[in-house]
Amino acid sequence: MSVFRQPGAYDHTITVFSPDGRLFQVEYAMELVNRGATVVGIECKEGVVLAAEENVEPLEDARDSWKIFRVDNHFGAAIVGLSSDARVLIDQARMDAQSNKLTYDEPIDIEVATEKICNIQQTYTQHGGGRPYGVSILFGGVDSTGPHIFDTHPSGTYRGHKATAIGAGRETVLAILKEQYRADLSFDEAKALAVKCLVKALQARQLPNRIKVAVIPTTTKKFEMLPDQAVEGLVKEAT
Amino acid sequence: MSVFRQPGAYDHTITVFSPDGRLFQVEYAMELVNRGATVVGIECKEGVVLAAEENVEPLEDARDSWKIFRVDNHFGAAIVGLSSDARVLIDQARMDAQSNKLTYDEPIDIEVATEKICNIQQTYTQHGGGRPYGVSILFGGVDSTGPHIFDTHPSGTYRGHKATAIGAGRETVLAILKEQYRADLSFDEAKALAVKCLVKALQARQLPNRIKVAVIPTTTKKFEMLPDQAVEGLVKEAT
Amino acid sequence: MSVFRQPGAYDHTITVFSPDGRLFQVEYAMELVNRGATVVGIECKEGVVLAAEENVEPLEDARDSWKIFRVDNHFGAAIVGLSSDARVLIDQARMDAQSNKLTYDEPIDIEVATEKICNIQQTYTQHGGGRPYGVSILFGGVDSTGPHIFDTHPSGTYRGHKATAIGAGRETVLAILKEQYRADLSFDEAKALAVKCLVKALQARQLPNRIKVAVIPTTTKKFEMLPDQAVEGLVKEAT
Amino acid sequence: MSVFRQPGAYDHTITVFSPDGRLFQVEYAMELVNRGATVVGIECKEGVVLAAEENVEPLEDARDSWKIFRVDNHFGAAIVGLSSDARVLIDQARMDAQSNKLTYDEPIDIEVATEKICNIQQTYTQHGGGRPYGVSILFGGVDSTGPHIFDTHPSGTYRGHKATAIGAGRETVLAILKEQYRADLSFDEAKALAVKCLVKALQARQLPNRIKVAVIPTTTKKFEMLPDQAVEGLVKEAT
Amino acid sequence: MSVFRQPGAYDHTITVFSPDGRLFQVEYAMELVNRGATVVGIECKEGVVLAAEENVEPLEDARDSWKIFRVDNHFGAAIVGLSSDARVLIDQARMDAQSNKLTYDEPIDIEVATEKICNIQQTYTQHGGGRPYGVSILFGGVDSTGPHIFDTHPSGTYRGHKATAIGAGRETVLAILKEQYRADLSFDEAKALAVKCLVKALQARQLPNRIKVAVIPTTTKKFEMLPDQAVEGLVKEAT
Amino acid sequence: MSVFRQPGAYDHTITVFSPDGRLFQVEYAMELVNRGATVVGIECKEGVVLAAEENVEPLEDARDSWKIFRVDNHFGAAIVGLSSDARVLIDQARMDAQSNKLTYDEPIDIEVATEKICNIQQTYTQHGGGRPYGVSILFGGVDSTGPHIFDTHPSGTYRGHKATAIGAGRETVLAILKEQYRADLSFDEAKALAVKCLVKALQARQLPNRIKVAVIPTTTKKFEMLPDQAVEGLVKEAT
Amino acid sequence: MSVFRQPGAYDHTITVFSPDGRLFQVEYAMELVNRGATVVGIECKEGVVLAAEENVEPLEDARDSWKIFRVDNHFGAAIVGLSSDARVLIDQARMDAQSNKLTYDEPIDIEVATEKICNIQQTYTQHGGGRPYGVSILFGGVDSTGPHIFDTHPSGTYRGHKATAIGAGRETVLAILKEQYRADLSFDEAKALAVKCLVKALQARQLPNRIKVAVIPTTTKKFEMLPDQAVEGLVKEAT
Repeated sequence: MSVFRQPGAYDHTITVFSPDGRLFQVEYAMELVNRGATVVGIECKEGVVLAAEENVEPLEDARDSWKIFRVDNHFGAAIVGLSSDARVLIDQARMDAQSNKLTYDEPIDIEVATEKICNIQQTYTQHGGGRPYGVSILFGGVDSTGPHIFDTHPSGTYRGHKATAIGAGRETVLAILKEQYRADLSFDEAKALAVKCLVKALQARQLPNRIKVAVIPTTTKKFEMLPDQAVEGLVKEAT
Repeated sequence: MSVFRQPGAYDHTITVFSPDGRLFQVEYAMELVNRGATVVGIECKEGVVLAAEENVEPLEDARDSWKIFRVDNHFGAAIVGLSSDARVLIDQARMDAQSNKLTYDEPIDIEVATEKICNIQQTYTQHGGGRPYGVSILFGGVDSTGPHIFDTHPSGTYRGHKATAIGAGRETVLAILKEQYRADLSFDEAKALAVKCLVKALQARQLPNRIKVAVIPTTTKKFEMLPDQAVEGLVKEAT
Repeated sequence: MSVFRQPGAYDHTITVFSPDGRLFQVEYAMELVNRGATVVGIECKEGVVLAAEENVEPLEDARDSWKIFRVDNHFGAAIVGLSSDARVLIDQARMDAQSNKLTYDEPIDIEVATEKICNIQQTYTQHGGGRPYGVSILFGGVDSTGPHIFDTHPSGTYRGHKATAIGAGRETVLAILKEQYRADLSFDEAKALAVKCLVKALQARQLPNRIKVAVIPTTTKKFEMLPDQAVEGLVKEAT
Repeated sequence: MSVFRQPGAYDHTITVFSPDGRLFQVEYAMELVNRGATVVGIECKEGVVLAAEENVEPLEDARDSWKIFRVDNHFGAAIVGLSSDARVLIDQARMDAQSNKLTYDEPIDIEVATEKICNIQQTYTQHGGGRPYGVSILFGGVDSTGPHIFDTHPSGTYRGHKATAIGAGRETVLAILKEQYRADLSFDEAKALAVKCLVKALQARQLPNRIKVAVIPTTTKKFEMLPDQAVEGLVKEAT
Repeated sequence: MSVFRQPGAYDHTITVFSPDGRLFQVEYAMELVNRGATVVGIECKEGVVLAAEENVEPLEDARDSWKIFRVDNHFGAAIVGLSSDARVLIDQARMDAQSNKLTYDEPIDIEVATEKICNIQQTYTQHGGGRPYGVSILFGGVDSTGPHIFDTHPSGTYRGHKATAIGAGRETVLAILKEQYRADLSFDEAKALAVKCLVKALQARQLPNRIKVAVIPTTTKKFEMLPDQAVEGLVKEAT
Repeated sequence: MSVFRQPGAYDHTITVFSPDGRLFQVEYAMELVNRGATVVGIECKEGVVLAAEENVEPLEDARDSWKIFRVDNHFGAAIVGLSSDARVLIDQARMDAQSNKLTYDEPIDIEVATEKICNIQQTYTQHGGGRPYGVSILFGGVDSTGPHIFDTHPSGTYRGHKATAIGAGRETVLAILKEQYRADLSFDEAKALAVKCLVKALQARQLPNRIKVAVIPTTTKKFEMLPDQAVEGLVKEAT
Repeated sequence: MSVFRQPGAYDHTITVFSPDGRLFQVEYAMELVNRGATVVGIECKEGVVLAAEENVEPLEDARDSWKIFRVDNHFGAAIVGLSSDARVLIDQARMDAQSNKLTYDEPIDIEVATEKICNIQQTYTQHGGGRPYGVSILFGGVDSTGPHIFDTHPSGTYRGHKATAIGAGRETVLAILKEQYRADLSFDEAKALAVKCLVKALQARQLPNRIKVAVIPTTTKKFEMLPDQAVEGLVKEAT
């Protein structure tokens, strides 16, 4: 009966493949991610830059970022999607990092941390009784093997990147990155490029500028938020 | 089949995303919150004010508030939605606060307390076998890092605010707050503004005045309900 | 599809909000309560009165009341709804009271006892695998903070009252109470008023008189059933 | 859609109230009980009589009753409904009685034993994963507070009676009991009345006589089956 | 909607009563039993005879019976229905018998063993997550209280019999038994009657003769299969 | 409604009997078995022969058989159906055999091993949450009571045979066995007959010859695969 | 009703056989595998070659392969399907290998490792509450019994091969292998053949060349990725 060959019949529960081998619930979660505010990650020899569109309303408490988080000294995360889902995963990543430090007396590899989070995400795509996490996360930082950026997918897949983006402005940003990214960017050039990408993505969607930036330099291996003035300077340069 | 592309087909269970990545059960819980009696929170240098519309019938035992609760010495909570759901979460927050005091010998950070409650709320949006909590809570008080107000969403998301409102009068109140809130309000001005917001919200919906107010001054870091006479004075000023 | 916007589609399971944020199963349980025999609670300085319509058939064992129960020395409960559900909750309240006495060596606060029962009721409105308790309970008695009456709702909500009623005659009784209740009623006046309320409620539904009354005086803090003769005297006065 | 307002839509699972607050599965279980063979219980000062219609086929092993059971020395049970369900509950009551004797060194109160069984029955009306017990039980006997008869309902409700009946002949028997029962019946009169009730109930349904009788005298507090000859004598008297 | 008043709507799951208080899944399991090969049990003063139609194909290993099983020295079982379900229950009965011997140092009462199996069968008619056992078992043997035969029903009900039958030929056999069974049959007469019953039942359904017989004499209290030649002799007598 | 009287309505879940007492899921699993490649087992005084059609593609690793497995020294298994299901059961049988050796210091009886596997299979036909095992297994070998062959059914039923077959060619093979099997076959005749059966079964379905054979001689009680050359010789004889 | 005889009605849940004994969810998972990028495995006397199409985008971190993984020193795995599902299984295989080394002080047999993974995959095809793993894995390497290649199926089945392929180009590759594979290939010839197979498969689907190769030589029994230059040389040879 032809009704069964349509998405509708296979997308109510995560534990069912469609006849052509698709997992609709994971695709719908990705839909949520694809509508979210854009985040960008760029890696160069001097370190890693994470940047995010941020929506801070007038009376909100502006002290913190709600899109970029410090996970451990040496790496952070930029999120797109359900912020409550993301918080749960970021908290888990923080615990994994602490636990690694206690057990092995050294900072966790960023890929190891990423994989642990992705294993949780995978579980929620295969077992009944829940829904997939509606979030993609860009983990970025510097560990003993150098600077790294990984992006995660609601399916639990992750990939390593020299530069990438997630969210509504992804296509715009990737086009700029493919053209302007070079492996030998200086740290300042990388910061400027990250901000420029978001400025263009916001312009493309006719939204006002509202950007937060975090950096993890190779020298210090310390996650730090750029001061708002510094970001504003880069925004001016980019426009 | 087009029927599957409509809300109806994805909103019976919390563990399913709709094709456009929405969680309908969470939105329906928020609907309950949006119909509830308004609560307001305002923060200034001298402390935090929580105010709530309250419906006390003639023969009800008027000794207590049913909308504003003391959680620990240094912070309280104002609730909108199912009061039984709220009570369960407030009780949990009280236990978290006690537990923090016993473990670390210092008052719990208000954001930490808020996040713990939001993690519970998030869980009920992702796992089957239950429904989301039908409540939003305004946590407000003063901890070692100063005065704070956080509002929670049935999805488990929370945000920090200098001043905000939840419930049926939210739009009315936010409009007033955006116009009249200043970071340098005195404590008395903050109390007056909070009461004024609720008076206007009640007028907008043509309801009689019925307001409760709690304050947590920065100096004492002690939650206390304003006496009914004090509130009545502020109400008179506002009308 | 419009069928999904109707009650029918959201009322089969407790763990689902309707699009307008309602919990139909809880409302249906309340329907059962609203059809039940009326109970009344009245508090005055000298103590608390609990009264109930009772249906004792000729050959039933008339020694006990099936509507009013002693929970602990200092408080009792009057029930409306499924008597088997109520019994389970009353038994739990008795155990909570015993446990409190053993742990703290003092009688349990009536509000604490009420809240514990309401937490159980709330759980059954949020988690799958069961139905809500089909019962409302009027807890009344005298503890260290004076006389108290609390009524519970199948949702797990409770409120404190000076005087209130549950069940089929609720509207009739509340109308009388609003008119005739005064905080300075003597104990005898309170007993007479309670009985009068039930007499009028039974007349309104054209039912014969069949009333049980329990009192908890402030002086003794001891729950006791009024003898049938005493009740009959009050009934005569009231008619 | 009007289909949802009909019994059909709410009666497939026990954990759902109908819109008017009914539990259909419990009503259907009671339907089974109402079609079962009649049992009668009569209490007088000298003791308690339990009597039951019994269907013994020619080649059945006639040594035992399949409707009346000894639970402990001092009380028995007469069952109506699914005999396998009843057996499980009777076995549980026997264990409760043994356990009480071991723990407190005295026979269990018959009401306590009844309530324990009813609590099990209540559980099966509120939690998913099972069906209600399809049985009503008449517990009757003599304990330290005198003779008692309690009947249980598939909902887990129970009531005390001086004389009562369950099953297909209930209406016929109750009519006789209301007319002929007196609190000062002698034991022999009570036995004769019990048998007479069943004889009339069988005649009303045009069925042959087949009756078993158990008695628990106040003096001995010992459950014993009346010999078949004695019953036959009473049957002859009654016809 | 009238569809809900039909069997179809109540017979998919065991945990649901139909509106007239029936359990359809149990009835369907009984349907399976009613189509199975006939077994007969006859008790006399000298012992118990169990006999069964048996379908042994040419190349099957003919050493064992697949319908009659030794449970313990003193009793056996004849089964009708799903043989895999039966095997699981027979194995359990064997363990119960062993366990009784180890604990009390005496052979288990046959009724006790029967009840234990029936309690398992009852559980599967009340709890979800499974189906009823599709088998009826005739337990027969000699214990300290003499010879006994009990038959079990998929509902978990059992009854004691002097002589009875289960399966497709039940009606035919019961007709013969009612006519020809006498309590004072000799053991040889009982064996001949059991075989005769099956011969007639097979003739009624125009099937070839294929019969196995087990006996448990009162003197030895030892279960033993009759040799095939002995059975053939009895078959010849019967035809 | 007549739709409920059709297979469709009762065959989606294993825990439901159809109105005529059938278990459709078990029948569907048997359907899978009936389409599988044929296996044959033949027992004679000198030992047991297991033979199987085998599909070895050109580039497959030909060292092992994928249809016949050694379970313990003294017996093996030939499978038809889902090979992954079979592997799980064969592994379990190997563990049961090891465990028996460790506990009793003697090889496990082949019937005991067969029954243990069948008990697992039965469980999956009665409890929800899974599907039946889609496999039938021919266990064959020599234990302390001589040579044995047992075949299992997805329902968990098993039977002993002197010679039998499972799979797509079953009817063809049984016809040959009924004609040509004799209890006094020599071991070489038994091997030749087993191969001949499969050759004819393959011809009937116009498939090329591809046969594996295992033997367990009574003298050695050791399972061994016949060398491919030996099998080829027997195939030539048979064609 | 004919609708029940169509795929649609049996393919929503893994725990149900279709009337013709098929498991649709497993077939749908295989559909996902059949659309995935091709992997090839070739075994010769000198070792094993694993090769995979790989999609490395310009800005991806190119240091690692996302299709071929080292499992232990002596063997690796090439995956087709959901990479998150594969990662979970590969991690499990790594743990199994470590565990084997710790317990037995020797490398795990590759077939043992394969079977352990397949047992996990089988479980997810038989028990409810989850979906099958959407991945096929080619395990290849050299253990104490020589070089081995095994491929796994979402059903949990595995087979040994001298040379094989999985994924979208499987038919193309198998055609080449059947023609050109010889057991006496040199290691260099095997590498060239593996690359050639993928080049042809990519050409057939008009895709650019993007190939990764891993080898496990018999001499070293050490898994190593071929350098990209070496692969490029082989690609040039092949085109």
